[in-house]
Amino acid sequence: MSWLDEIKWDEKGLVPVIAQDKDSGRVLMFAYANREAVALTAEKNTAHYWTRSRQKLWHKGEESGHFQKVSAIQFDCDGDVLIYQIEQVGGIACHTGRKSCFFRTLINQEWQITDEVIKDPADIYTHGHAHP
Amino acid sequence: MSWLDEIKWDEKGLVPVIAQDKDSGRVLMFAYANREAVALTAEKNTAHYWTRSRQKLWHKGEESGHFQKVSAIQFDCDGDVLIYQIEQVGGIACHTGRKSCFFRTLINQEWQITDEVIKDPADIYTHGHAHP
Repeated sequence: MSWLDEIKWDEKGLVPVIAQDKDSGRVLMFAYANREAVALTAEKNTAHYWTRSRQKLWHKGEESGHFQKVSAIQFDCDGDVLIYQIEQVGGIACHTGRKSCFFRTLINQEWQITDEVIKDPADIYTHGHAHP
Repeated sequence: MSWLDEIKWDEKGLVPVIAQDKDSGRVLMFAYANREAVALTAEKNTAHYWTRSRQKLWHKGEESGHFQKVSAIQFDCDGDVLIYQIEQVGGIACHTGRKSCFFRTLINQEWQITDEVIKDPADIYTHGHAHP
């Protein structure tokens, strides 16, 4: 049996994936992957996902250049969530031009922005908007 | 508008939550929360979830004693995922008695256990199995 068969895919054939900076531990992104995406990630050591909005395989960085080098894949006790331990090329994981997609923090009952924009998205996505 | 209204709840009224050790950055758990669980978490600074298998509000630690003190709640760009930054009481988040639920790593095309059991689950759940 392949290690891929041990993953409990949801009713859409997807598994949630947490992308974590392998050095800082910062959680950079959360997305979903299908079997093909996880297999390609393990084979090529670069993060692949399934975009639910565009309904296609998504090689992260294919439009932005912000690829994610994957050094390890972790698996939870229930077998239905993965972590990609990554090095984020360009230091920007979020389509807003920030390091992490988790750039808002609940402070005084409001979501306050606690991360700066590193690069204007207009300068990242020169061939159209690539966010899923 | 409440900050809770900004969360994009899924079709079941849930939001995925990543529980992360606020100091080490280790991802300890992944679960879901409904509106009541998130509201209680913010109000009481102790992690609440919704267990999908038991279909009820879940105050993490209510049976194991392994509560999670929440120091911050973070929110992603799409508004549909949360991170609870936590201090894990007892140092054990997983129902298997390990620090983290993500205790398996893909090595040589196999899921290998890379985290030790800290405490026998039989000694944790003295009143029956409490894992969702």
